[in-house]
Amino acid sequence: MIHLDEIKVPLDVPESKKDAYKRIFFEITQGSGRLMLMAGDQKVEHLNDDFYGPGISPEDADPEHLFKIASKARIGAFATQLGLIARYGMDYPNVRYIVKLNSKTHLVKTAQRDPLSLLWLSFEQLDYFLETKPVPIVGVGYTIYPGSEFEAQMLTEAARLVFEAHQRGLIAIIWSYPRGKAVSNETDPHLVAGAAGLGACLGADFVKVNPPSVKEGDANLALKEAVAAAGRTRLICAGGKETAVKDFLSRLHAQIHIGGTYGNATGRNIHQKSLSEAVAFCNAIAAITFDGASVEEAFAIYKES
Amino acid sequence: MIHLDEIKVPLDVPESKKDAYKRIFFEITQGSGRLMLMAGDQKVEHLNDDFYGPGISPEDADPEHLFKIASKARIGAFATQLGLIARYGMDYPNVRYIVKLNSKTHLVKTAQRDPLSLLWLSFEQLDYFLETKPVPIVGVGYTIYPGSEFEAQMLTEAARLVFEAHQRGLIAIIWSYPRGKAVSNETDPHLVAGAAGLGACLGADFVKVNPPSVKEGDANLALKEAVAAAGRTRLICAGGKETAVKDFLSRLHAQIHIGGTYGNATGRNIHQKSLSEAVAFCNAIAAITFDGASVEEAFAIYKES
Amino acid sequence: MIHLDEIKVPLDVPESKKDAYKRIFFEITQGSGRLMLMAGDQKVEHLNDDFYGPGISPEDADPEHLFKIASKARIGAFATQLGLIARYGMDYPNVRYIVKLNSKTHLVKTAQRDPLSLLWLSFEQLDYFLETKPVPIVGVGYTIYPGSEFEAQMLTEAARLVFEAHQRGLIAIIWSYPRGKAVSNETDPHLVAGAAGLGACLGADFVKVNPPSVKEGDANLALKEAVAAAGRTRLICAGGKETAVKDFLSRLHAQIHIGGTYGNATGRNIHQKSLSEAVAFCNAIAAITFDGASVEEAFAIYKES
Amino acid sequence: MIHLDEIKVPLDVPESKKDAYKRIFFEITQGSGRLMLMAGDQKVEHLNDDFYGPGISPEDADPEHLFKIASKARIGAFATQLGLIARYGMDYPNVRYIVKLNSKTHLVKTAQRDPLSLLWLSFEQLDYFLETKPVPIVGVGYTIYPGSEFEAQMLTEAARLVFEAHQRGLIAIIWSYPRGKAVSNETDPHLVAGAAGLGACLGADFVKVNPPSVKEGDANLALKEAVAAAGRTRLICAGGKETAVKDFLSRLHAQIHIGGTYGNATGRNIHQKSLSEAVAFCNAIAAITFDGASVEEAFAIYKES
Amino acid sequence: MIHLDEIKVPLDVPESKKDAYKRIFFEITQGSGRLMLMAGDQKVEHLNDDFYGPGISPEDADPEHLFKIASKARIGAFATQLGLIARYGMDYPNVRYIVKLNSKTHLVKTAQRDPLSLLWLSFEQLDYFLETKPVPIVGVGYTIYPGSEFEAQMLTEAARLVFEAHQRGLIAIIWSYPRGKAVSNETDPHLVAGAAGLGACLGADFVKVNPPSVKEGDANLALKEAVAAAGRTRLICAGGKETAVKDFLSRLHAQIHIGGTYGNATGRNIHQKSLSEAVAFCNAIAAITFDGASVEEAFAIYKES
Repeated sequence: MIHLDEIKVPLDVPESKKDAYKRIFFEITQGSGRLMLMAGDQKVEHLNDDFYGPGISPEDADPEHLFKIASKARIGAFATQLGLIARYGMDYPNVRYIVKLNSKTHLVKTAQRDPLSLLWLSFEQLDYFLETKPVPIVGVGYTIYPGSEFEAQMLTEAARLVFEAHQRGLIAIIWSYPRGKAVSNETDPHLVAGAAGLGACLGADFVKVNPPSVKEGDANLALKEAVAAAGRTRLICAGGKETAVKDFLSRLHAQIHIGGTYGNATGRNIHQKSLSEAVAFCNAIAAITFDGASVEEAFAIYKES
Repeated sequence: MIHLDEIKVPLDVPESKKDAYKRIFFEITQGSGRLMLMAGDQKVEHLNDDFYGPGISPEDADPEHLFKIASKARIGAFATQLGLIARYGMDYPNVRYIVKLNSKTHLVKTAQRDPLSLLWLSFEQLDYFLETKPVPIVGVGYTIYPGSEFEAQMLTEAARLVFEAHQRGLIAIIWSYPRGKAVSNETDPHLVAGAAGLGACLGADFVKVNPPSVKEGDANLALKEAVAAAGRTRLICAGGKETAVKDFLSRLHAQIHIGGTYGNATGRNIHQKSLSEAVAFCNAIAAITFDGASVEEAFAIYKES
Repeated sequence: MIHLDEIKVPLDVPESKKDAYKRIFFEITQGSGRLMLMAGDQKVEHLNDDFYGPGISPEDADPEHLFKIASKARIGAFATQLGLIARYGMDYPNVRYIVKLNSKTHLVKTAQRDPLSLLWLSFEQLDYFLETKPVPIVGVGYTIYPGSEFEAQMLTEAARLVFEAHQRGLIAIIWSYPRGKAVSNETDPHLVAGAAGLGACLGADFVKVNPPSVKEGDANLALKEAVAAAGRTRLICAGGKETAVKDFLSRLHAQIHIGGTYGNATGRNIHQKSLSEAVAFCNAIAAITFDGASVEEAFAIYKES
Repeated sequence: MIHLDEIKVPLDVPESKKDAYKRIFFEITQGSGRLMLMAGDQKVEHLNDDFYGPGISPEDADPEHLFKIASKARIGAFATQLGLIARYGMDYPNVRYIVKLNSKTHLVKTAQRDPLSLLWLSFEQLDYFLETKPVPIVGVGYTIYPGSEFEAQMLTEAARLVFEAHQRGLIAIIWSYPRGKAVSNETDPHLVAGAAGLGACLGADFVKVNPPSVKEGDANLALKEAVAAAGRTRLICAGGKETAVKDFLSRLHAQIHIGGTYGNATGRNIHQKSLSEAVAFCNAIAAITFDGASVEEAFAIYKES
Repeated sequence: MIHLDEIKVPLDVPESKKDAYKRIFFEITQGSGRLMLMAGDQKVEHLNDDFYGPGISPEDADPEHLFKIASKARIGAFATQLGLIARYGMDYPNVRYIVKLNSKTHLVKTAQRDPLSLLWLSFEQLDYFLETKPVPIVGVGYTIYPGSEFEAQMLTEAARLVFEAHQRGLIAIIWSYPRGKAVSNETDPHLVAGAAGLGACLGADFVKVNPPSVKEGDANLALKEAVAAAGRTRLICAGGKETAVKDFLSRLHAQIHIGGTYGNATGRNIHQKSLSEAVAFCNAIAAITFDGASVEEAFAIYKES
């Protein structure tokens, strides 16, 4: 457990917002310093592929499914686009929201054109929500694609977004995914470490990366380079594609305890389940992330829910 | 029928504009929650192709034809460019207008260059009309082309437009048409569902899609995935090319009652008819959309008008 | 003849500017509702090709030639770039000026790159002239190239320019020239009609098009589709290349009386003549355009001047 | 000699700045109406190629050489980048400066990509120098490349720069160099005339062109078309590559007295000489330009200095 | 040693900021007029390549290593991204920081696309740090790539950055690296001199270049052309790849005493060492740069630390 007083507040958070920043940091990590982020930006990023089809709960076809889970499960925060928050938030005011401020579809592949994802809204527009407070917005998220030919535009937007978030006492999370014709292996451990360090240079509080893959040995060990490169910026791993529950929990446990990560961000593995199963799964993830539970303990929570 | 009180107002509509938003929503759906949009942006989108030629009423050659229909027929709202509204609106002040804020011609084909359609006017400019109120402007429309190489620019403009519309108590409608070299089948049901969900993430009140096509089975059933993906954003179908009246009404009825859609947006099928026939046709569409009329009842209205 | 009271003022002209707008409209059409525009933007559009060489009066080599003609002849208005107006206007304060706000050279051909012509000045800069009133500026002009790959940028600038012009009580004229690799026949009657309708959707008061060409039949009849498509936006034809005077006058007469156009915009055919001949030619054009003179009457005016 | 009262002030110079404008015009032309511009922007345009190497005075290796010459010689004005002025101006406060507001290197050749040179500073930034007056800034310069695929961006910046310069009572000089894959012969007399006329349409006070080349006959005669096309905008010729002194002076004399030009802008031919020789050379140029000296008289001045 | 009074303050530094500028200049050069810059922007520029791997101290894996060195060693200033400063600065408030305001990754190679690196933050955002003063920010840095197809964007940003830095009394350092498909030999002495002169034209206080390479003769002699071309803008050399300590010190000594440079900027050669060794190495560099120590004296300092 961390103490509120121990939280190092970045220098671009004004004096008047430091307490708010610390409180948010404490709440979304539930005092553990680790984040369990429910990622729900895929309705743009993957269109309807993650929400409808074989092996996906029919409940997932409706966007409200995301909000129901986020509302009932034990999570750190729920990340999604502001449009959905504006439409459903009045019925789910207990959820802590991370506004995902850029998103793109997956239709144009890298072979055709390098990825570019730009800010949807200005901070002036976000301020409306911060001032009227219909729902608790605790931070913002932004995806960068280092290695894209359009990297420069995204780095600029990302650096400004972190600054502006901190000015408002909010948490800033960078999704850092090397991608583009120049990138031959997106999950090379050394490249992932570079992507993590880039998040740190941008000033992010958390940097989300795809976990590295290795030809031999323990991929979780390979994470240590990235965790170190991120420094005080806390590294979290993307949850990735649908995985069996126990395997998922084991991997998460290893990422934290072997790799030294600060939690993960999970989307599909959560919302493709029925509501009750998704809630149970979130609770299991939360137990590992926030409480330091073992894989067996967490799996029992999943089974019992 | 819906009640004014039941209407869920998105969180980006300020307290002071909530009544206006509800009233507009009620009026353009005539209390049914379903929209009958007369779409009249084709003079840019298709240049003169839809307005002059074999099978098209000579009355359609004059832009005023659109306004006459919109003024005399029972419709929810009429969508067109602000330039035309500024030129004809003084003579048709009873029409509810949706300002179509971006438009492009169809001259450059996707094989040459992916589509890009940008905002014509700023909201500061639109405010002039909202403040001086020469005609009732009830909302704005914007077309996005997910899958275009220029998608990022349009997603940004669309997200901001929805926010700005809601700030003013207006309705926002997104035309969501997957298009670009990366898109091989624009009416694939799963892709259409993705396009619909994208409209929801942008915060649109209504999302207009091209109805999906299927190789076998009922295309209207295939709509259900898209309607679900749009969630609280209400899906309406594009009317498409000239179709026999009864076929059109049957399809609309099925889209609503089988597919679960919230109405449609029709252009060519309306304005390519003579004024009297167009008015009759609109009234028939309105009967299905707003009153829950059967195909036969609607066709009788068309015949009797 | 039209009455001041009959003039329909577009809705984006503020109440306080309506009289100014009507007066300008009345003056530049000399009460006829038809415009005789002296077009003088070719020093950019065609560099020195139209001003020096065989068959061109040596007087035309000096830019002041344009101002001398505009000052002495009976014309509706004179369109040119603001830089020239700023340099010569103090000596020709009686001319009504249309500021051509975008221009490009003809050096880069469509085969190399599609045309792009952007605003030279902001309206804030134009306001300086409107406020200090060293010369009467009565409107603005802008060229769009529908079918260019860069169409989107120009449509946005054009729509805003029309709005801003009307806000100031000025007339807005759109030069609408389909051009680009996607355009195989720029003077196809149906395409010209589309270009005319596009001007209407942009809110222009006048839309200038290249007259359509036909394989057989009367090209002037083919104009009717375009005039209808433009609706209340008044269509004027470009004067085109050097033509024998009588042929020119005959064509103009037919465009107006057969095609239904509202006048024309002539450049080279005027300024490539000596001052006295150019003035006589303008007066002949004016007689047809403003007074309803016959070709013979107009030609007599030309001969007698 | 001209009188202050004769100077025609462009209409975008405000009443309050007219005297300043006239005085600047008078001073930099030393009452002759002709300009002798010492051009010193080559440290960007040609990097170090013009400043170091065989046949170049070792004194030219140091940027201060430019300032020493400008300070000691009889010139109209000295054009260079603001960064150099900010660094050396405190020691050379007697020089009249033209701020060259855009510059590019010569590294990327036209065959690779058409030229693009953009504004380095905003006028708001330039205002700092105008208000604090550490050195006399008398005007601004900007290079356009008509025929470049990026022409539109430069024409917009140029037009606004002329307006903004005049608003401040400053002189605006346009370097107008046709260049790009579309331009096969940059010094074609007819094209040079077009480039000169373009400068006039932009509102420039002076337009600098490369002197035309002809296959046969007198190139200076060919200049007359360009001088005429520029009208009241005064045409000056670029000095070009290193040339023997007497040849240079002869050419300048012919450009003025045969071609009708209003002086020249010389860089390399001046600063590649030692300080004393450069000063002598400037004085000779000034004698021809300002005093109407003959070639022999000017050469004597050069020899005696 | 220089005196505070001798420091020439550029003209874009306001009167009220001149003392601050002089003091900063004096402090970061420790009164020597020469700069020892610890460059720490590689976590973006080279991702994790410089921080992890064979021959690199394990301490370098953590970004805090940079701050520890900067805090304990004798350096002029430490250049890094603002995001890192915001995260670590509270624990290292004694370091003088140069904010590196643009950065790019090395993933996209020149053969694929010419380099483009854009401003991450606006000066309005930097002002927050200047006003709240959590750490001493003494200047800003920016990399330009002359010869890149995107050179124009970077030259504009660089020129404005220098101006804005000076307005605030800060030092501006330009990294000037010729790069792009048009550049065949980045370390050609003549080209390096051009790059140095370009920094002068932009108004930089220091220009950082890669030291030239020569086929035969002394590369340090070749530096003289660049030092001269930079004029009053002081040239510093990039430290480059890992080099044996004594070789490094010898080269630095020669660059200063033969080439006439004003110090260097070193990154990898410092931080790839352990903390104690890095501090010792910095102190040795400082002795040469600031104190005029000989190579042997400096090496003794390194050995003794």
